[in-house]
Amino acid sequence: MTSRSTTTTARTSSEARAVARTQTLIKGQNGIGTVRKTTLPGGLRIVTETLPSVRSATFGIWAHVGSRDETPSLNGATHYLEHLLFKGTKKRSALDISSAIDAVGGEMNAFTAKEYTCYYARVLDTDLPLAIDVVCDMLTGSLILQEDVDAERGVILEEIAMTEDDPGDCVHDLFAHTMLGDTPLGRPVLGTVDTINDLTAERIRRFYKKHYDPTHLVVAAAGNVDHQKVVRQVRAAFEKAGALDRTDATPLAPRDGSRRLTTSGRVELIDRKTEQAHVILGMPGLARTDERRWALGVLNTALGGGMSSRLFQEVREKRGLAYSVYSYTSGFADTGLFGVYAGCRPSQVHDVLKICRDELDHVAQHGLTDDEIARAIGQLAGSTVLGLEDTGALMNRIGKSELCWGGQMSVDDMLAKISAVTPDEVREVARDVLGRRPSLSAIGPIQDKQAARLHDAVA
Amino acid sequence: MTSRSTTTTARTSSEARAVARTQTLIKGQNGIGTVRKTTLPGGLRIVTETLPSVRSATFGIWAHVGSRDETPSLNGATHYLEHLLFKGTKKRSALDISSAIDAVGGEMNAFTAKEYTCYYARVLDTDLPLAIDVVCDMLTGSLILQEDVDAERGVILEEIAMTEDDPGDCVHDLFAHTMLGDTPLGRPVLGTVDTINDLTAERIRRFYKKHYDPTHLVVAAAGNVDHQKVVRQVRAAFEKAGALDRTDATPLAPRDGSRRLTTSGRVELIDRKTEQAHVILGMPGLARTDERRWALGVLNTALGGGMSSRLFQEVREKRGLAYSVYSYTSGFADTGLFGVYAGCRPSQVHDVLKICRDELDHVAQHGLTDDEIARAIGQLAGSTVLGLEDTGALMNRIGKSELCWGGQMSVDDMLAKISAVTPDEVREVARDVLGRRPSLSAIGPIQDKQAARLHDAVA
Repeated sequence: MTSRSTTTTARTSSEARAVARTQTLIKGQNGIGTVRKTTLPGGLRIVTETLPSVRSATFGIWAHVGSRDETPSLNGATHYLEHLLFKGTKKRSALDISSAIDAVGGEMNAFTAKEYTCYYARVLDTDLPLAIDVVCDMLTGSLILQEDVDAERGVILEEIAMTEDDPGDCVHDLFAHTMLGDTPLGRPVLGTVDTINDLTAERIRRFYKKHYDPTHLVVAAAGNVDHQKVVRQVRAAFEKAGALDRTDATPLAPRDGSRRLTTSGRVELIDRKTEQAHVILGMPGLARTDERRWALGVLNTALGGGMSSRLFQEVREKRGLAYSVYSYTSGFADTGLFGVYAGCRPSQVHDVLKICRDELDHVAQHGLTDDEIARAIGQLAGSTVLGLEDTGALMNRIGKSELCWGGQMSVDDMLAKISAVTPDEVREVARDVLGRRPSLSAIGPIQDKQAARLHDAVA
Repeated sequence: MTSRSTTTTARTSSEARAVARTQTLIKGQNGIGTVRKTTLPGGLRIVTETLPSVRSATFGIWAHVGSRDETPSLNGATHYLEHLLFKGTKKRSALDISSAIDAVGGEMNAFTAKEYTCYYARVLDTDLPLAIDVVCDMLTGSLILQEDVDAERGVILEEIAMTEDDPGDCVHDLFAHTMLGDTPLGRPVLGTVDTINDLTAERIRRFYKKHYDPTHLVVAAAGNVDHQKVVRQVRAAFEKAGALDRTDATPLAPRDGSRRLTTSGRVELIDRKTEQAHVILGMPGLARTDERRWALGVLNTALGGGMSSRLFQEVREKRGLAYSVYSYTSGFADTGLFGVYAGCRPSQVHDVLKICRDELDHVAQHGLTDDEIARAIGQLAGSTVLGLEDTGALMNRIGKSELCWGGQMSVDDMLAKISAVTPDEVREVARDVLGRRPSLSAIGPIQDKQAARLHDAVA
């Protein structure tokens, strides 16, 4: 990810304080889309993007910790901790936290992934100081009391049970296991009933202390925001919590490394009495920083990214074999996955898998038509621009970008990358990614004889 | 719903054409939030709301038809038809329709409810003419060919199977049945496997002809749109399809009537091998036009509308008994429902139901605290304003409002209604709605002895 920067080192506050570095990473137009970054002494990064035409703002804090940072016995700790940060601080009870944002009609939530955790609040711009105060307090002052750990254990176990009841959700966890096995990336974000039952308050507290140092955090705000005001308020909140005392600390670098994933031809099946069989046919994809990701994005869009895509047309439109069928990519620091999902009645699963496999093979051998590529480029470009009207989406983009790439890319640069993808590049990435023998994950009422036939799809 | 209007009758086009009436229903500020309405000869209504600060627009067409317009043997026809409108017209194949919107990165979809159906596309403002052309073509020129009906039958059956696999979704259909029985409002929008298998192309074509007359439609557009341009283009599209020939036709009035729902103490249970039990405890609510709906909205928010609500605090925050617990209201033309949903492991279902029932009873008797009411009013007001930055939400608001209320209400008027709710009004509506003996719908692995105990919750 490229990053255009205009460094303007400046003292933000009184001369007694250590110097914060502020850069303009993307110069917007008429104040729209300007992205600024300040790194505070103590190693805390703050990025903002301005969209002065809206009356709202989304404020978030990203932590450089996800389920891939867990040992087997800690599996689920990142997500458990995410819940616990809502349970109270030295200053606020759980009810104080939720009341504060509810009272102004804001929306507050958090999500935990394999490589990061994010806490955010979307509020009217006049309520931004309140949102900053509450979210910073949660991140720096969480108590993680024994009684809260105990009460929240029940909530997490319910969340696991709820996910189990949704096979279309569950099959994605199974696919990660099929492809990545019992490794940090392959294990579920929620953990398991056993690991959750075994986690102690003490271990979660240690996990919190280790992973929520300011050098591991990126603060992101987008909407009708003033960069320097956000910086001042965040700085004050973190300083009050004593979190910026190590003034020589430097921010944690993005994850890197490269892992050659070779899983191929594996089949994992969970037999369950559902109405539909839920299947994912997939193969290793590309790491997040792989330059071929733009071509893979175009390929993915044309193959299974919309109603006009090949898979939708072949499986649903022409034959009515599924309601939901799509392809997707997921990129991590060092590897990635490519998958095709379909949900269909068990009697049709072999037909659906055969059609999907044939399409994958065909595209691997012959690539896409120029028409399909042009349409996919248009689709990606249009949806990228349409996705920028929501301050939540903007906050996600700059926060994740800072944490995972260590830089920002302007929308114009992104559109240029998308438009520059050539048929040759698509053909090449199709040959490389789709040309591998796929693996298969399935959940549904699929027994002996039928199950044996599943192997045909990955032969 | 009030409607402030400035009528400006004007000829929109050449003098040979019949006169269209254009009104300004809400006068915005600086071009923001201006709502205009034109009624074309032929009885087609067009409403727009301007938000010039965005670069996108959402265009939708609302049809005054939902599953409550179906006879028992037609159950599911409205939704089936919604699918078929994407399958092709005289001018476009299914692939032409999806390709057109995909190629510009737009988002096109539709939804069917009990009282209306809506088709929409969200696009960059420069692509609005394309979106208008495609959606108008779908609505006026659908072919509904036998082969498409046959292929789409499979898709619908998959959608039914998918819903069956999601008990947290399914329980809402069960609750409608518990409360409203085997009536048009009580039956599922998707229909059943039997009705879908029995529906013929001929019957669906007749249903289309009957319910998609321009007098039954409301066109709505929001975002960076020009009202007169939208009117001209929609008029041209409908005229070309010969849909505005009955120049003396007048728009269909909103549904009305009042139905006294008295369901009380009923228990319906579907025994299924799921991890969680999914329950809804509820009672009759208020019709959409009931003036007490503002007070009920405040009550619902304080009781189960957010993380600081009573039910969330008592069930999840303090005791960790559920991941998801909330209350909600649904209003129809002539009646309404109020429900409390919770998903929890079967061993905890009695505790959860007891807590919910106790809270309902307590609030019915004592109302809410002034603090709770003030917070709920702030929450409703803030979320109303925050909900107005998305052109899709704006389009939904004005389209549904025109169809269901026959008028528009400004945001300021809505905020005034919310703020004006008094503790006495909340107490009164709580006594009336929550004071009734509830009914219960449950899906989960709940057998004989446990099932008998479910009746305690509604005793």
